Amino acid sequence: MSLAWLQHPARPVDSAARQTALERQQVLTKPRGSLGELEQLAVTLAGLQGKPLPTLTRIHFSVFAADHGIAEAGVSAYPQAVTGEMVRNFANGGAAISVIARTLGAALEVVHLGTVNDPGSLPGVRRAWIAAASTNFLHAAAMDAGQLAHALQAGRDSIVTAAEAGAELWVGGEMGIANTTAATALACALIDASPVELAGAGSGLDAAGIRHKADVVAQAVAYHRAFAHDPLETLRRLGGFEIAALAGAYIAAAQHGLAVLVDGFIASVAALAAVAIRPDCRAWLLFAHRSAENGHARVLEALEAKPLLDLGLRLGEGSGAGIAVPLLRLACALHAQMATFAEAGVPDKA
Amino acid sequence: MSLAWLQHPARPVDSAARQTALERQQVLTKPRGSLGELEQLAVTLAGLQGKPLPTLTRIHFSVFAADHGIAEAGVSAYPQAVTGEMVRNFANGGAAISVIARTLGAALEVVHLGTVNDPGSLPGVRRAWIAAASTNFLHAAAMDAGQLAHALQAGRDSIVTAAEAGAELWVGGEMGIANTTAATALACALIDASPVELAGAGSGLDAAGIRHKADVVAQAVAYHRAFAHDPLETLRRLGGFEIAALAGAYIAAAQHGLAVLVDGFIASVAALAAVAIRPDCRAWLLFAHRSAENGHARVLEALEAKPLLDLGLRLGEGSGAGIAVPLLRLACALHAQMATFAEAGVPDKA
Repeated sequence: MSLAWLQHPARPVDSAARQTALERQQVLTKPRGSLGELEQLAVTLAGLQGKPLPTLTRIHFSVFAADHGIAEAGVSAYPQAVTGEMVRNFANGGAAISVIARTLGAALEVVHLGTVNDPGSLPGVRRAWIAAASTNFLHAAAMDAGQLAHALQAGRDSIVTAAEAGAELWVGGEMGIANTTAATALACALIDASPVELAGAGSGLDAAGIRHKADVVAQAVAYHRAFAHDPLETLRRLGGFEIAALAGAYIAAAQHGLAVLVDGFIASVAALAAVAIRPDCRAWLLFAHRSAENGHARVLEALEAKPLLDLGLRLGEGSGAGIAVPLLRLACALHAQMATFAEAGVPDKA
Repeated sequence: MSLAWLQHPARPVDSAARQTALERQQVLTKPRGSLGELEQLAVTLAGLQGKPLPTLTRIHFSVFAADHGIAEAGVSAYPQAVTGEMVRNFANGGAAISVIARTLGAALEVVHLGTVNDPGSLPGVRRAWIAAASTNFLHAAAMDAGQLAHALQAGRDSIVTAAEAGAELWVGGEMGIANTTAATALACALIDASPVELAGAGSGLDAAGIRHKADVVAQAVAYHRAFAHDPLETLRRLGGFEIAALAGAYIAAAQHGLAVLVDGFIASVAALAAVAIRPDCRAWLLFAHRSAENGHARVLEALEAKPLLDLGLRLGEGSGAGIAVPLLRLACALHAQMATFAEAGVPDKA
């Protein structure tokens, strides 16, 4: 499977649509700037969607599920069987992201990349099986070259599906026991941060568990250090199937001109990898929230990202991004539907 | 008009419903606590609504508009005629809060308490005329006793209307040129803060304008200082019609058992007055956002309030609270619709 598509450039942002939107914001019946970050959101979306009045009717969520060899190192508060069972929970509509997508009237695609506990084929789940789990990256690469290519392509396939369905915004989510450990290792390698600084509680480790996780990450980063200058190779060595799928999706979204709302810690680390591989995809990424996971703030800083929400979320699945979607929709509604000073006959500032 | 109703106690929160909701949060298919502040919101709303699965289908916005005598002191970036014209804009559906209420499928009531520029009777606007404006409070009380009573009652009337219509959440908004000056003066008197510390840009003052505003506030607070121990009297002296209406509404909402989502700086100062008058109404107030207005953080601190959003909003009208409503709705949807570990057959934490 070829990775040649990674070389395609991101679509340029439409600066004319952006400028028209910016000018409209100055004449709506409110003090200039008084809608704060919502004004900027509407203007940014105008540039990404290439229309002065952006819309967010059709939103596409893709949740990638996969297991991790590094779970063997005892780095999660939950048993590995949870990943496969959560795939079933996504399909049955009982997971947080199921509820959020339903509430928002959004499409939800679940992409099953491989779990140790295999729930088999399920309605509403796209099976893109790579292996039961990635390889424990303490003493080997997490993925071989073929697995990496398949994972990146799985993300790209979701973007193609979403774009063909006319999606106006794409959100990627993830599920995978031990994936905060993979994401922490990947982030440490990509931004040369300390494992102690970045390691966090994940799904609920105590202080001793976090110390152990930081040790595991430190060992893995040291083992793969010689390749840290190469982000694609580092993604192969320290990532996981769903993390690589997200990175592939972010790059493909930028290539297809589809705006992205990035979720929490793991999604942001995937974005870090995507931007390291293709810096021009950064313009297509909006950031939903700062999560409670310890390393997230540092990763957002490396991405020069200022997220919308800070609500102590740390669930993943794309849930934090889903929770931020109504803010983007309201930003678009206000931008399109508010009267101008001239239309309303309201006196402007002297 | 009697103020005897201010003596009625707030309805107690339903601790049994709250406890049932808290227990449910512990068994939903997510790491405990991973939905952060959304978990607490669902639990709090359960206690306020008296049901373990709270709902937010019916939401009622009331926006109170009034002019201020203190506008004579040159404290606003906009001409006073804007207040009356914005009443027309609310009625015509072109204001931010009009767009937000429509997008949310919420009821929007506009309450016209008095403006120098009178747009007359308008469809969708409740006329509760007190006077063209409050009195300039530099050398007199902003309201006489009858005006204060009418303003408080106007707020209470909105709560009765909302409660009778089955509202599950009430949001109060305000519009009134110069009302950040009144709110700043009222807050300074109520929490003994410095005008320089609290005065902000309002709808868009420059640095010199903010200094002048702080001077005006300092003079007014000094003039009325002898009454600062009495919150109701301080509200009469330094408030305004729409600020008193909001304070009356917050008290009445607590008495009627209707949950409230408080908007920005002016609404929060009205909440400060309401809580000073009737401390037991505090439990019924949720706080939507920290605005860009300078004094808001200090006022929220005095209320021991931790708002949901921090998006640089500073528009008023109830808009910031409206923008936060979808977060509350998602909190309720997740709480009610997520599967439990037992229902989904997902293994829980070891």
